[in-house]
Order: sequence, then C-alpha cells, then structure tokens
Amino acid sequence: MFNIYNRVTPAIVAELTGIAGAGRVIYNDSERMEAYSRDEIPGNHYRAMPEAVVFPGSSAEIAAIVKLANRELIPLTPRGAGSGLSGGAVPIYGGIVVCTDRLNKIIEFDPANMMITVESGVIANDINEYLKDSGLFYAGYPMSMETCFIGGNVAENAGGGKAVKYGVTSRYVLGLEVVLPSGEIVQLGGKLLKDVTGYNLIPLMAGSEGTLGIFTNVTLKLIPRPICQADILALFPDSETAIAAVPGLQTESGVLPTSIEFMDQSAFTEACNYINETLPLDQCGAMLLITFDGMHEDDVTRDYEQAGRFCQRAGAVEVYVADNPATSERLWKIRRSVPEAFSASTPLQSGEDIVVPPASIPAVVKACREIGSRYGVRVPCYGHAGDGNLHARVTPPPEWDEAQWDATLPAVLQDLYAIVMELGGRISGEHGIGFKRKADMAKTVPREFLTLLQSVKQALDPNNIMNPGKIFDLSTPEKG
Amino acid sequence: MFNIYNRVTPAIVAELTGIAGAGRVIYNDSERMEAYSRDEIPGNHYRAMPEAVVFPGSSAEIAAIVKLANRELIPLTPRGAGSGLSGGAVPIYGGIVVCTDRLNKIIEFDPANMMITVESGVIANDINEYLKDSGLFYAGYPMSMETCFIGGNVAENAGGGKAVKYGVTSRYVLGLEVVLPSGEIVQLGGKLLKDVTGYNLIPLMAGSEGTLGIFTNVTLKLIPRPICQADILALFPDSETAIAAVPGLQTESGVLPTSIEFMDQSAFTEACNYINETLPLDQCGAMLLITFDGMHEDDVTRDYEQAGRFCQRAGAVEVYVADNPATSERLWKIRRSVPEAFSASTPLQSGEDIVVPPASIPAVVKACREIGSRYGVRVPCYGHAGDGNLHARVTPPPEWDEAQWDATLPAVLQDLYAIVMELGGRISGEHGIGFKRKADMAKTVPREFLTLLQSVKQALDPNNIMNPGKIFDLSTPEKG
Repeated sequence: MFNIYNRVTPAIVAELTGIAGAGRVIYNDSERMEAYSRDEIPGNHYRAMPEAVVFPGSSAEIAAIVKLANRELIPLTPRGAGSGLSGGAVPIYGGIVVCTDRLNKIIEFDPANMMITVESGVIANDINEYLKDSGLFYAGYPMSMETCFIGGNVAENAGGGKAVKYGVTSRYVLGLEVVLPSGEIVQLGGKLLKDVTGYNLIPLMAGSEGTLGIFTNVTLKLIPRPICQADILALFPDSETAIAAVPGLQTESGVLPTSIEFMDQSAFTEACNYINETLPLDQCGAMLLITFDGMHEDDVTRDYEQAGRFCQRAGAVEVYVADNPATSERLWKIRRSVPEAFSASTPLQSGEDIVVPPASIPAVVKACREIGSRYGVRVPCYGHAGDGNLHARVTPPPEWDEAQWDATLPAVLQDLYAIVMELGGRISGEHGIGFKRKADMAKTVPREFLTLLQSVKQALDPNNIMNPGKIFDLSTPEKG
Repeated sequence: MFNIYNRVTPAIVAELTGIAGAGRVIYNDSERMEAYSRDEIPGNHYRAMPEAVVFPGSSAEIAAIVKLANRELIPLTPRGAGSGLSGGAVPIYGGIVVCTDRLNKIIEFDPANMMITVESGVIANDINEYLKDSGLFYAGYPMSMETCFIGGNVAENAGGGKAVKYGVTSRYVLGLEVVLPSGEIVQLGGKLLKDVTGYNLIPLMAGSEGTLGIFTNVTLKLIPRPICQADILALFPDSETAIAAVPGLQTESGVLPTSIEFMDQSAFTEACNYINETLPLDQCGAMLLITFDGMHEDDVTRDYEQAGRFCQRAGAVEVYVADNPATSERLWKIRRSVPEAFSASTPLQSGEDIVVPPASIPAVVKACREIGSRYGVRVPCYGHAGDGNLHARVTPPPEWDEAQWDATLPAVLQDLYAIVMELGGRISGEHGIGFKRKADMAKTVPREFLTLLQSVKQALDPNNIMNPGKIFDLSTPEKG
C-alpha cells in the first residue's frame, strides 16, 4: 500500500525556496548537510544524508512544505536541536529535513494562568532563564536542556532528572499546535487544566517522534518555582548496595525527592575526568544523587536529613549535603556530563535506556553486570533510578575492533532486553525508539500493540511521508 | 461508508449466553432493561432502550462479544456504573449494552512499586478503602466516587475534587488492558513510570468514552497517603467576590491547595436542604471550599492560614476551618451532594461542565448571571473553580412547561458556549461529550480537530460498532 518515494529535484528546491525564502534551503552541499545526517548517537552507525534541508519560519511555511511533500511523495524528517539519542531526526530515506531552528520565539508568558506559550525551536533551558524572576518555572529537566529544543522534548516525551517528583514532559503540555502529515494545522488543547472535549491527542503526539506531525508551538503549564533546593550525594561501596537503596527511599522513608539519580563508578569517573572535576571519591563504588526542593527551608532540610539517614542505614559510607546552588550545580554538572563523557570516549558503544518497574531496578543492575561478564564487555550504568529508568552504556574492551563489536552487541542486547521484558519493562524509558531500537521494539512488544500503532499512523499519514521508518516500519519503501 | 446495523436476534442472544453464561443476558424484558437506557442526566431527554444487556465476567468473554458484534454488525455500548452525565452509556442505536459489573476484583496491590491493579468494574472509593491501612492512596476523587467504577473514570478521564493538586484520572493510569473494537485484547503500558516504547495510547483511551475499546483492568499509580488534611470554608457576600479570589489563591498566596471548590448560594442551599444539613450561612452569597493535605501538620496549618488570610483580604466575611475528618466530611458531603440535589429538584435542567483558562473563571460566572437574566432562567454555578472547570445548572422558572424550556435552552447554551470559546475554553472539562454535547462540540471545535478524531476512530473501529454516535458522528447509521 505504500508509495515509492520520489527524489528532491531542483524544481522542488525552487518551491522550497519560494516557501521558506532565499538562503533557507541547503541542497547539493554535502559539507553543510552532513550535520543533518545524524543526531547525538555516538559512532557512524546511525547516519543518513538528506537530499535537502529547509529552515521554515512559521507554521504556515511548514504546512506548505508538508503539502508539497504529500503531492510529490517525498519523505520529511522533522528536526529540533538534533540532540536525540535514537536516530529520530536522521533522514533514513533521504528527502527533506525540516528544521525548527527559526521557530525560536517566546510567544506569551501568562502569569495569571501560570502558563507560557513558546515556539517549538526554543531551547528548553531558555524557558527557565526567561522565567527566572517570575516566581514560576517549567519543571522539565532533560539532561541536554542547555541545547535541546522544547519541540524535540515534546516529540520524544523527554523524561530527565526531575521526573520522580514532577513527571515527564507531557504532563506540562496543555496546548500544542501541530502541522499534521496532511499539511493541515491543528491546535490541540489550550490554556486548559482539564478538557474532555474530544479525545486527548496531546499525549499521543507527545512521544510520537515526529511521525504524526511537526509541532510549531507549545503551551506549557508552569508551577511555583521552589525557593529552596538541596542535594545529597550518598556514596556507597558498590553498585548493588547503592541501587538496592532506591526502591525503599520513597516507600520506607516517606519523602518525595525531586530526583533520585544513580551513577556507578565508571559513570562518575568518566564524567569527572571529562570535565576536570575532582571529588574525594576513592572509597566509592557507586553513588546516589538525591535532590529535594520546596517552598520552605525547614521542609527541605527535614526531608534530606530523613533521606540521608535512610541511605546510611542502607549502607552508604558517606553522605554529603549540597545546600547551596554552586555546590548543587557542581554535582549536577557531573551527572549531566555522563552521556557526553561516554560518547567522547569511544565510538563503539551502545547507549541503552531501559525502564522497569521501579522496585525491579536492582535486578537490572545485577543483570547488566552478569551480561557484561558473559560477553567480556563493560556495562556501566547510570540514570534516573527513581523512575526505574536506567541508562547502560555497553562498551567493548579497548582491543576489540568494530567487526568483533558488531558481532557481539546483538547478543548482549538480546540478553539484556530479555531480562527487561521478564521484569515487565520496556526497551526505552525516555530516549525513544527512532530507528536505532525499531527492530528490537518489534521483537519485544506484543504484536497487537504494534498493529495498533501502525493503524494510528496510517490514519494520520496515509502517504507515510512524515518521518517514515521511525518507531516501526509500515512496509519498506524504496527510493524512486 | 457505514453499515446499517443489524438487530439482536434470539440466535445472537443464545450466542451471548454461550459466551457469558446462563442468566448473564437480559433480553425481551423492558422492565429490567430500563435501567440500562440511561445514565445520571436528569430528565427523559437522553434515553434509549438497548436490545440486549450482557454481563461478561472476563476480558476473554468481552473479546468474544466484540467479535460477535463485528461479525453481525451490532452496536455495542460499554457501561460501568452508569453514573455518567453526558449519555455516554446510553445505547442510542439499540444493540447490546456490555456491563462491567462482574469485573470487580482487586487483582494486585504492589506496595513496593506503589501501584495497584484492579478490574474496571471496581468502585473508585473501594480502592481507597482497600488501601486505607497501607500508607498509600489513589488520588482520583470524582464526586460520584461512592458509586462510579474506575473503568468509567478512565473512560471519561474523570476530574473531580482534588485535581488542583493531583491532576485528573489519566495521570495515574500506568497500565490498561483494553478490548479493542476488533475484539483483540491489548495491554497498554504496565508498572512503568516512564515509557516511550511506541506511542502513548493510554491517554488517548482515557477520555475516549467507550468509543475506542472496553477497559478490563487498570494499573494505577499510588502516592503516599497524606497524614493531615484541613479544609477552610470561606464565605463571601456574593458569587463575584468569591470567584474573583480564585485565580490569585495560588499565584499570590503561593500555596498549592488540594482542592478549590466554588458553590454559589443556590448550589449550597439546594445541597444542604437535600441532605438536611444546617450551617450558619445566612450572610453568605457564595463560598469557597479549599482543602490542604500533607505529611506534616505544621505545613498544612501554615498553608491554610495563608489561604485564609488571602480569602479575608479578597473579601470573605467569614473563614471557618475544618481540621478534623468529621467536620471535613460534613463540608465535602455538601459539595458532593450538589449535583444530586439539583437533579432531584426538577427534570427540566441542563448540567453544564464548561472549562476555561483558570484566570477567566470570574468572567464565566458573570456571563452565567447575565445570560440567566437575558432568558429569564436561573444559572446556579458550582464546581472545580481552581481548575477553571465550572458546573452550571441551567434551570427554568417553576412555571415553565417543557415546550417553553425546550424552545429556550438552545439559545441559552449558544450564548454560554460563545463566551466560553471566546475565552479559549471548551464545553466539557470532565463530564465528557457523550451524545448530549455532540452537536455543540461539532459547532465549537475546529473542523480539522474533529476530522482528526474521526480518523482515529475509523482506524480503530472500521465497522463503527463501539459506542457509535458518541463524541461525534461518523455518518448516521440506520437500524436494520
């Protein structure tokens, strides 16, 4: 039932230029296009060159491009900041990459409704910079927040470091303007805290990885900005002891942390080296970084003291407290640098993003160690342990060549995913499927679930032009 | 493109009995079927008799019934407790009503993951009764919680009295087993706090009003049960002063109440009379019922005192505090009784459920008064003011007959909805569209939004057998 895609011709480039303006289209320039052939997955496995890259400046221009793509049967790949980790922004069938860089305006800050409306190309962190004197804030906190776009956060339903308390991106998306695969522009939701007037399509769009439309603006719910924050850094002798403390932290100590982050020795050592940070961590085999925030210093102090005592009972050898912004930022910078530090260390690695019921997180860390031993690879772990979401960076020993790595990785992942599925988990908690995890998703989710996703996609994008080949395949189109 | 539905025949009844068991099907018995011709909408306007009613006992039985309905082209109407307010459970094309009463088991309480899995026919309140000594609770709090089923709460994405702090039903639904319109059974989500492995279909199902499937079991996220609760009842001289205090309550006083409920004089008087409650309310023209809960008495006290002072500055003539469960329940019983009290008073009324940006809620109360004067009807208001969700009960003067009422109501609603839309609102915040608000929804939402909903429905239910004619029309099937 699928078309063979057509190629981007000079005539189509002329039309794109007519829509977006002179200088807004890259074509026949592989040097400049290279940056649009990849995202932040390390290595060269997940790249594909686009045929053209366009920088539209408005929803109307994007709508015109989408209509053109439908008419000409050319695949489109929406792109935010390109900070993804699953290949979602990689144009695997060539075609046109549609960049949202120019949609970078704060449209309206509405303090009376505690909401903000921004264009999709606004950097996530810039929203909070803009709000910093307002007493309000946006609670999303992806680790790439200094570079990623809010539209990409919505497209991936980004999680991040504060989801234990605040939840993931979609909880805050009240309104969303979407250019549908048909080229129609639809406004979903609005400045409404509740709305059952028709199906709720916002959470369907959130996490659809650009396959159901291109987001052009977003209305976000804001919440009162916490006045106080404190972090505790609990050092444990080993990973098993550290991770075993996580499930009880909420259920037994009764506190609700903002964050519960886990880093094993490899993760924090790699990150510290990468950013030239030195901490007295010689005795430490793993750590938990636990954050509390609130409106009253007493409450925050009471909670972190309770959590600190809990960690000590659970086997922590040291518990440090960071109760000022500078120290807190120093710790969080280590945490945020882990992915980049690993990525810089070797192109041969696989960044995993598994998620399991939170009480099963110790079982996964144990499985990672066992699988590592079985195949002679390292599986350092870090991530959002409080959510049951663990990042594992499967890495070969330095002496392996690419062939040996490529031959081994599938078996490693098969064993890892088998454990994850057995525990009732899924292969991606927040990075998305993109095309990196597409084959593994097809193997691990129920067939009727996959069929259901495909039905929704086909209903909204009958020509399969909107980020085709991501999350799942419909059929395999060939280039014309 | 739609089929003409077929009638339920004795042969089909025999098949239904074969599936669900002897005594599990009602047929040819209009006395017993009458209860399944309606929900809780007052009056006789929104009723329709089913041809058969069936009480399956498992997902597999429901799947078999759905397959039968597809094969025979017979419309199905899923039904929970029948406590809806938009006609969602009314079988407007006849056919088979599928009741979930027998799916009433608590499947698994999982304290380590802070989750509970229940069948869809469990009464919402029974979940919290079950959990009452566990230190955990389910945060949903629809006003009908003593009777409504959790499956219906999910199908309507019920809001309720605690959404200011805790959000609506869908925030807590982590896993959902659904019998799709095809008759396939699919498990969506699971015991996962984050999951981007494919589209997030749970929030699409939540609020789909039985048009996209029948829910058979639900995994709910639980949270630590607050140890303390206190309510303040702030009495104001009139509705305008009371409602004007709502938007600033959070933004200016900086507190996060669990609930901010509004009742005008008609609402609380009607409710007090209905339940024989007497409160010293002679001076009172409107009230706000504001609840706080938390883990520490000091925090709750600090917050309600701050809110109380804010209300006094905003014009409250009295602020009462209920800091014990008995008094709190007494106040909340008044609030929960408002809908029933109004419903009992006259069959000629229309219960509205409008939602606007929270800062616009005073404008809506003013509009209700003006529209009431314009048409000579009463428009008493109450509801979840903190969410921007207002219930208005449009009621004619006692001397009007049904003809006069029927002739006037459309104009009243047209004026009301025009204001709501102008303010960026929608016609239903939590009661759903059902078939009661279907025509008004079609008039007030953008055409491309409606088309999008229809595409999703057609993709999942090509024969249009699953609760047809609810939320929107696809075409008008006729009975065979």
